[in-house]
Amino acid sequence: MDLALCYSGGKDSSLAALVLDRFYDVTLVTATFGLTDDHEHAQAAAESLGFPFDTIELDRVVAEEAVETMRADGFPRNGIQRVHEHALESMAERDVDAVADGTRRDDRVPTISRAFAQSLEDRHGVDYLSPLSGFGRGAVDRLVDETLEVESGPSEEVPKADYEGELRALLREQGGEAAVGEVFPAHEQTYVRGRR
Amino acid sequence: MDLALCYSGGKDSSLAALVLDRFYDVTLVTATFGLTDDHEHAQAAAESLGFPFDTIELDRVVAEEAVETMRADGFPRNGIQRVHEHALESMAERDVDAVADGTRRDDRVPTISRAFAQSLEDRHGVDYLSPLSGFGRGAVDRLVDETLEVESGPSEEVPKADYEGELRALLREQGGEAAVGEVFPAHEQTYVRGRR
Repeated sequence: MDLALCYSGGKDSSLAALVLDRFYDVTLVTATFGLTDDHEHAQAAAESLGFPFDTIELDRVVAEEAVETMRADGFPRNGIQRVHEHALESMAERDVDAVADGTRRDDRVPTISRAFAQSLEDRHGVDYLSPLSGFGRGAVDRLVDETLEVESGPSEEVPKADYEGELRALLREQGGEAAVGEVFPAHEQTYVRGRR
Repeated sequence: MDLALCYSGGKDSSLAALVLDRFYDVTLVTATFGLTDDHEHAQAAAESLGFPFDTIELDRVVAEEAVETMRADGFPRNGIQRVHEHALESMAERDVDAVADGTRRDDRVPTISRAFAQSLEDRHGVDYLSPLSGFGRGAVDRLVDETLEVESGPSEEVPKADYEGELRALLREQGGEAAVGEVFPAHEQTYVRGRR
């Protein structure tokens, strides 16, 4: 069965790929608005893990609406949630049996409710899987240590493709570094360099 | 890393074992009040899958309280939830790195909240995993079809060890078949006969 996994090059979506690989023909798919070349980092990470890789084009209007929401809110949560739901909808239109993402039990954003999951499945005739949603932060960290080579650092320096880079670019275009800083607090990101 | 998986011999906990096997040294553990020999069916299923098997003894008082709750409610949900939480607490006291169960996204009972999961992890110094909680009913059914040999039938006829058999036995002891029928509506169960 063919499965498309929303892929950022980070540890969560990489671990999700290893979980699903036992059951599906997994393709790692990075959703992009075409605003940056960050998807190239995800492609390099996918190749380091030995999975097929593809990109999917998102609707630029969704990025603009998300940035508008984030600037009004003063935090990224609702904008990122909107983009992730749009990405899953786009992935579900591919010719696959299942779509998946790397959301974890302890994630605050994005989160996919059971109602959204069932609606996505019914409307598109696919299964939606979030294989890490039954894994807490500690378990994910331990499994990542055992299975992946990971680099971490401040989120503006680690190459990754999780919407955030593109939404930062659009914020920067609209309001400079100040607009970015008002929405995104400094935090750590991870980037996968290969299997252990 | 050693993991103890709450095991009934049914398709959900069997599929959970296959998901976790990629990352952990999995032992299938059936929790029993010692009221029936149903754990022997779980042991046979575990052997057919090639996993180590063990049992864990539950507190008989919990079974009596659960049956009292179920008779007062007229449905099994709260009683089964209570027993499952007690089983996870007991499993978490074993010398393991992680405990797990086969609860799915679309299950109504038992369900383990994020708060209960984190509390269990903090108090016992283990990870708690519910690897199917990001899998809907359709995905589970399709993966089971691909990976397991399964028998299904009315729940009173299919040999299994998911607390229900023992709680039915205790109900029958107290109030005969009528007491069982008042709490448990007729439904289908599954039992695993091996790998495909």
